[in-house]
Amino acid sequence: MTVSPISHADLRDASAVDVRAAIRSGAYVGHTAGLAKGKLQCNLAILPERYALDFLRFCLRNPKPCPLVGVGDTGNPFVPTLGPDIDIRTDVPKYRVFRDGVLAEEVTDISDLWTDDLVTVALGCSFTFENALIRHGIPVRHVELGRNVPMFSSNLSLNASGPFGGKMVVTMRPIAADKVAAATEISARYPQAHGAPIASGDPAQLGISDLSQPDWGEAVDVRAGEVPVYWACGVTPQNVLLEAKLPICITHSPGHMLLSDVAEDAETTIFNTP
Amino acid sequence: MTVSPISHADLRDASAVDVRAAIRSGAYVGHTAGLAKGKLQCNLAILPERYALDFLRFCLRNPKPCPLVGVGDTGNPFVPTLGPDIDIRTDVPKYRVFRDGVLAEEVTDISDLWTDDLVTVALGCSFTFENALIRHGIPVRHVELGRNVPMFSSNLSLNASGPFGGKMVVTMRPIAADKVAAATEISARYPQAHGAPIASGDPAQLGISDLSQPDWGEAVDVRAGEVPVYWACGVTPQNVLLEAKLPICITHSPGHMLLSDVAEDAETTIFNTP
Repeated sequence: MTVSPISHADLRDASAVDVRAAIRSGAYVGHTAGLAKGKLQCNLAILPERYALDFLRFCLRNPKPCPLVGVGDTGNPFVPTLGPDIDIRTDVPKYRVFRDGVLAEEVTDISDLWTDDLVTVALGCSFTFENALIRHGIPVRHVELGRNVPMFSSNLSLNASGPFGGKMVVTMRPIAADKVAAATEISARYPQAHGAPIASGDPAQLGISDLSQPDWGEAVDVRAGEVPVYWACGVTPQNVLLEAKLPICITHSPGHMLLSDVAEDAETTIFNTP
Repeated sequence: MTVSPISHADLRDASAVDVRAAIRSGAYVGHTAGLAKGKLQCNLAILPERYALDFLRFCLRNPKPCPLVGVGDTGNPFVPTLGPDIDIRTDVPKYRVFRDGVLAEEVTDISDLWTDDLVTVALGCSFTFENALIRHGIPVRHVELGRNVPMFSSNLSLNASGPFGGKMVVTMRPIAADKVAAATEISARYPQAHGAPIASGDPAQLGISDLSQPDWGEAVDVRAGEVPVYWACGVTPQNVLLEAKLPICITHSPGHMLLSDVAEDAETTIFNTP
């Protein structure tokens, strides 16, 4: 089946349901920043059931970098608590498939890879609190510059679980000194999206030697009158999964997130609350 | 070993660490309401590992009645994310042991029952938001009367997971009509303790026929100028566990909670954040 490609601009005002439909049909394979405004976007991890209990325990013990927002039944590709029609095999624009901790392929559909022992885990994403900062008049430098956020390995030890552990990855956003308190208060409202910052100021306190040399993403300047502010990063669980060298693990490709029907400011991440 | 009994009054100003030490020694076996002020108290569920993944998924899909605040490794009786010294075999004043869904015994120590396949799950408890309401000048009737909170089976279907499902249990607290908005806003700050109310007003909307006939706990009057306000209840997961008829399941006895070292108003329920 041939489908006509759809652009990011075409989907600017589309609902999450409609964006997912475009993705599912193969017409849209791009990044999801700025799409389905007001809806929770999710980091994705799909792994074999025998690792799922330890991984959920890991996430529950490290809720700042690993905020659990949804989990599927074993072998079931649907995640109705995030959206009634979500089929995790087809509804993410781009996936990365890792085997034994090594990137094996990048694909736009995992129907052929889906098996009866796979478990879907969805985690919150920083888009949520970045949107809230911008709405409240606090600029986010890397968004303004159209860059990926700078990410750094920190010296903060994670609470381990089974094969999962290591150090926390943090993001850095320069914030005007007189707005750090407001940025903290606003992001704290989104515990499902990393919540309040982990730290601010001197990068050395986190074991970071040079803010101009991020471990992932792209550097941004910290200007006069600004303070570097650090948040827990959703790359943390991805790294931890890779280091655990699972025989298979599937994630979203960076920036190509799962769009949910859950409002960003909902009290819980369950679409059909209770 | 004989230990001298300690009274609730003796522990009024004791820290969570000291109350747990008194419980661990066998000197205190009473209820925990009002103890270790400012610290998170927890509902407890201990179950075999083969049910743990489904139970965690159940809780994650029903965060209002089942707010996960801590989980132990399989076979490990320590829960360091809730408190460095917590030994779940001895640190709860009274336990209920259920076999095949039937109460088998009530004990003050489960060291003899602990096995290598058990998993500890700790869930938030309504004491947290009740304390906050009282601190903010919103009286809580059943606390004033020294009664147990009235609890009702509702018609709200839970999101199922494996053998776990059913209907939500709710609590009812009468709140002055002009304080319902404040009570909602205050309790919403504690998602780890059931969060904002599920509903208010007519009990029929929840399938409750008579507020003077609670299914558990004790009735309280709704006076002129007051509105009945309903919150998700921590008895929900206990009922769901019983109905699943697990070969063994251990819970706290009502009111005899696990005291953690986590501050009630902490951003996460992880004592050693990250």
